[in-house]
Amino acid sequence: MDVSAFRRFISNYVFLSESDWSQISKHVHPRIVRKGAFVLRAGEVCNNFSFLEQGLLRFSVLKNGEYVTKFFTIAPYAFTSQYSFSNRLPSQENIEALEESIVWDVSFEDSNALLYLESWNTFVRKLIQEVQHFTELILEEVQNETAENRYIRLLENQPGLVKRVPLRHLASFLGITPQSLSRIRRRVTE
Amino acid sequence: MDVSAFRRFISNYVFLSESDWSQISKHVHPRIVRKGAFVLRAGEVCNNFSFLEQGLLRFSVLKNGEYVTKFFTIAPYAFTSQYSFSNRLPSQENIEALEESIVWDVSFEDSNALLYLESWNTFVRKLIQEVQHFTELILEEVQNETAENRYIRLLENQPGLVKRVPLRHLASFLGITPQSLSRIRRRVTE
Repeated sequence: MDVSAFRRFISNYVFLSESDWSQISKHVHPRIVRKGAFVLRAGEVCNNFSFLEQGLLRFSVLKNGEYVTKFFTIAPYAFTSQYSFSNRLPSQENIEALEESIVWDVSFEDSNALLYLESWNTFVRKLIQEVQHFTELILEEVQNETAENRYIRLLENQPGLVKRVPLRHLASFLGITPQSLSRIRRRVTE
Repeated sequence: MDVSAFRRFISNYVFLSESDWSQISKHVHPRIVRKGAFVLRAGEVCNNFSFLEQGLLRFSVLKNGEYVTKFFTIAPYAFTSQYSFSNRLPSQENIEALEESIVWDVSFEDSNALLYLESWNTFVRKLIQEVQHFTELILEEVQNETAENRYIRLLENQPGLVKRVPLRHLASFLGITPQSLSRIRRRVTE
């Protein structure tokens, strides 16, 4: 558990002075989330903007009685349930740890209070822009590509994710049954 | 053509003082975009963060030789080609006016310079958060709903959009052929 991983992550987006980091780090609190546990449950208000130092998360929403995968977050990266967090409303999504995970939380109040720091403010803006870009890319793929092509791209671009995510969740992300994904896997491996 | 529509739009997100608005409005420049013309072409760097006072835009990306619809922006709302705009890279998308449109542009340099204003800074952040939320909602629907259900929801939630967008673009947004959409329309109307 190493809070400097969060510092390095922020520094990928903005210049972070010693003094700004000392302001920010006061408001950062660690959590260990066991495999299978929930970082957030649908219906709860998301109170944290968080940095995932280690582990793997699954975002899912309830559709026709089952939780389908929206996307994954793989460490190191930041996350929140954005709409719930910024509007103080119950979340529509679950966030579940697929592996034991190390999470650093900044509360809603603290994150807002830190916006007076140009570094934090710019970091948050750039991060949301990046997440928006990733979400658009996933949307374009879902709109335009077959599940098989999406699986091949995942294999190429995020082989670690494909290895670490259980088959049923990967299938749900691709919008197909685990059986179909098994068949695709066999075809692709041959 | 009325720049105060942009002022009212910003005021939906933040408190905007007379003095802040007088700073912002200096950097806002109008454009009239004729029906069928492009606000931005794929391959160009998007130089503006813009407010759509009037009209309707289609965002599309090239897939297998044809431009498929990603989403629409209907006035009054703000838009940019976010990844291209913030990273100064060629855009992957076209933005096309489906109706004669009134657009108010703020250049990349001016938008960045205005970030020192807390009102503009907060407006931009809240807007990206909102766009991110809308993109996630579209993604969830595409992942989980049939084209027919998505059409029915559009009819319920954005009847104006359904009326104003040509059938072929709506079909492309729903990921189906215009013929399939015609069949769905007949079934839904009955």
